[in-house]
Amino acid sequence: MIFPDCQELLLDVDDGILTITLNRPHKRNAMNSRLVAEIMTVVESVQDESSIRAIVFRGAEGNFCSGGDISGMNLEQADDDLVAKATWEFNRVFGRMVTTVNRAPQIIVAALEGAVMGGGLGLACISDVAIADENAMFAMPETGLGIIPAQIAPFVVARIGLTHARRLALLGDRVDGEEAVRLGIAHFLTHSKEELEAQLQKVTARIRSRAPNATAATKRLLLDVGVVEHEALLDAAADAFTAALRGEEGQEGTAAFVQKRKPCWAESDDGE
Amino acid sequence: MIFPDCQELLLDVDDGILTITLNRPHKRNAMNSRLVAEIMTVVESVQDESSIRAIVFRGAEGNFCSGGDISGMNLEQADDDLVAKATWEFNRVFGRMVTTVNRAPQIIVAALEGAVMGGGLGLACISDVAIADENAMFAMPETGLGIIPAQIAPFVVARIGLTHARRLALLGDRVDGEEAVRLGIAHFLTHSKEELEAQLQKVTARIRSRAPNATAATKRLLLDVGVVEHEALLDAAADAFTAALRGEEGQEGTAAFVQKRKPCWAESDDGE
Amino acid sequence: MIFPDCQELLLDVDDGILTITLNRPHKRNAMNSRLVAEIMTVVESVQDESSIRAIVFRGAEGNFCSGGDISGMNLEQADDDLVAKATWEFNRVFGRMVTTVNRAPQIIVAALEGAVMGGGLGLACISDVAIADENAMFAMPETGLGIIPAQIAPFVVARIGLTHARRLALLGDRVDGEEAVRLGIAHFLTHSKEELEAQLQKVTARIRSRAPNATAATKRLLLDVGVVEHEALLDAAADAFTAALRGEEGQEGTAAFVQKRKPCWAESDDGE
Repeated sequence: MIFPDCQELLLDVDDGILTITLNRPHKRNAMNSRLVAEIMTVVESVQDESSIRAIVFRGAEGNFCSGGDISGMNLEQADDDLVAKATWEFNRVFGRMVTTVNRAPQIIVAALEGAVMGGGLGLACISDVAIADENAMFAMPETGLGIIPAQIAPFVVARIGLTHARRLALLGDRVDGEEAVRLGIAHFLTHSKEELEAQLQKVTARIRSRAPNATAATKRLLLDVGVVEHEALLDAAADAFTAALRGEEGQEGTAAFVQKRKPCWAESDDGE
Repeated sequence: MIFPDCQELLLDVDDGILTITLNRPHKRNAMNSRLVAEIMTVVESVQDESSIRAIVFRGAEGNFCSGGDISGMNLEQADDDLVAKATWEFNRVFGRMVTTVNRAPQIIVAALEGAVMGGGLGLACISDVAIADENAMFAMPETGLGIIPAQIAPFVVARIGLTHARRLALLGDRVDGEEAVRLGIAHFLTHSKEELEAQLQKVTARIRSRAPNATAATKRLLLDVGVVEHEALLDAAADAFTAALRGEEGQEGTAAFVQKRKPCWAESDDGE
Repeated sequence: MIFPDCQELLLDVDDGILTITLNRPHKRNAMNSRLVAEIMTVVESVQDESSIRAIVFRGAEGNFCSGGDISGMNLEQADDDLVAKATWEFNRVFGRMVTTVNRAPQIIVAALEGAVMGGGLGLACISDVAIADENAMFAMPETGLGIIPAQIAPFVVARIGLTHARRLALLGDRVDGEEAVRLGIAHFLTHSKEELEAQLQKVTARIRSRAPNATAATKRLLLDVGVVEHEALLDAAADAFTAALRGEEGQEGTAAFVQKRKPCWAESDDGE
């Protein structure tokens, strides 16, 4: 697979797992326009690649992501209307990227260490599986700066519910890994670098035991709940079920189950 | 009350509580088409019976329900189109049944022991009150078999939220009773067969202290949140409130309160 | 600021924080029509006052609010149609008030002690930040009286999700402060009167560190999630972000951040 050239990201593929590392450690991996565009391009480039089973997001040098890097907007050089337009685009494009990653057919994993703030929290909130280090620090500091958590709001509400989103967005409270798991930001809590890597291995092993197309169909279905009307959703779900059971993966999966062997897609798996 | 003949269910009525026991222990109570149809028929048959205050679902011989029993579909004998159609119907009819039970006017209770998997988890997710044994095992194993958790997806998302649904559906992780309570699948955790029966007694005693028609109206209202527009919902809620307060139950309930006695519907109640 | 005359409320303003105390202790602060109307009037009167940063709701003499005070309806004097109409209005007006307070631009704080029942629970459920005393008692007792938790249903479901709302509304179970925090009714648990006051001080200090207009814009956005369509919401969010960053608060907030000083709106703040 040939990925687009990236300046702000490190990319790595290992046995079907693509790892995207946000790589602006001098800014605690704050996202500028280029970084956001690069994530969008990379994720879209693997959209039809079922050989890529998962995308792991993490940050370079101990922080996940400290938010949007407003300093990179170069606001001084332009007239007022142009600056307003650039500000709008800078903000909006981030929401487009998060919307796209949320709907990626692959399983999205987030490894959350250090700062997970503002836009970084938004990105964490669309992961299918999130692992939080106990020392990670989650916050929406925006209103303390006179600005707002704009593009991330719907993803935070979908993640932790309105009740907790109100407190975190309006008070700007910082929460650690343990509280993040309690609030539902993350699924797994780890207590050291080693434990985080081990948990990541466990998760990717599980991912390799799952059928890729069935995974993509399941994810689409979950994200359509509340968007598509109930009976129409269940009709579409029955379509997808029938296609899956009668397709290659369903035939192989049920045969492997009867024969008490691993299905072909799980051959490198040592989890389960 | 005369119930329809059932092959796959055991039925019992005790002082207003109907217990439906899934009774295919050789398959860990996996649901075939007949079992699904029988649940539908029984639940519909008591739809207008306010003497039935609650329906308790449980499984025979230590398991709640291990999912859908695909083996019962008899796929070999028919041509391809017929098989596809049968598969679709087999799947879809389960969603229709769960949708119906979700909207039953009675309080639905689930006693969750052993396997609570796939479709069994879906059925658990529409209970109003769920009790989980610490050794119960909850999972959506579908994508490991190349298929998908199709009809249950919306009920799982409504039950535990998108965040936890993503992890459980996409990784197929098994969780025990304690984690099920933490995730919101169940309300009460018990540590032995005896404790589960005692908790069930406590719950049914509470149920007998509640007015049946007010219960049905309340349940309808809760299930309409997010479906009916906010102001219209509150208008309908005020209609229902007025009817309840001025109806037999409201008159009896408020009179009993003032007179410090139990209302007529709670006469056999020893809870509260 | 001149507030409307209130008979059922105590009002206090301290450095931008308006405290509204429900003051019918002989009825454990049960809400009659007048009290509901007074809350509505007071909250609407500060709607455009950005000098009022937060509204704290609490109850006089150790209880928050025991629900709606039906006894105040004066039902005897009128004919049947008039009584039905008055009952409907009594109920519906409460839902209008809660809907308005939910959308107030200020941060709503609830200090929850003693009885938090029925309508009192509904009011608690639209707070942005709720502090619960360990001995507080939360319940929806309605169906035990033959009536229904009508106007509060959507707010309870939005607060704690359908799963927990089903159990609490249908069984009428009482839960204490610790369980209320676990279920997401409240954010903070306190163990004494002193601790509750201290936590309240911490919360109001945080509130003073937040920019008022950014707060109002953020709150509006959070409440529009699930109401406004996703892409339209993100477009509006980018509008609000651009206005905030380029407005007075955004300029002051980002300048203060660079200059490592407190922004002007946080001058009296000793939190952060």
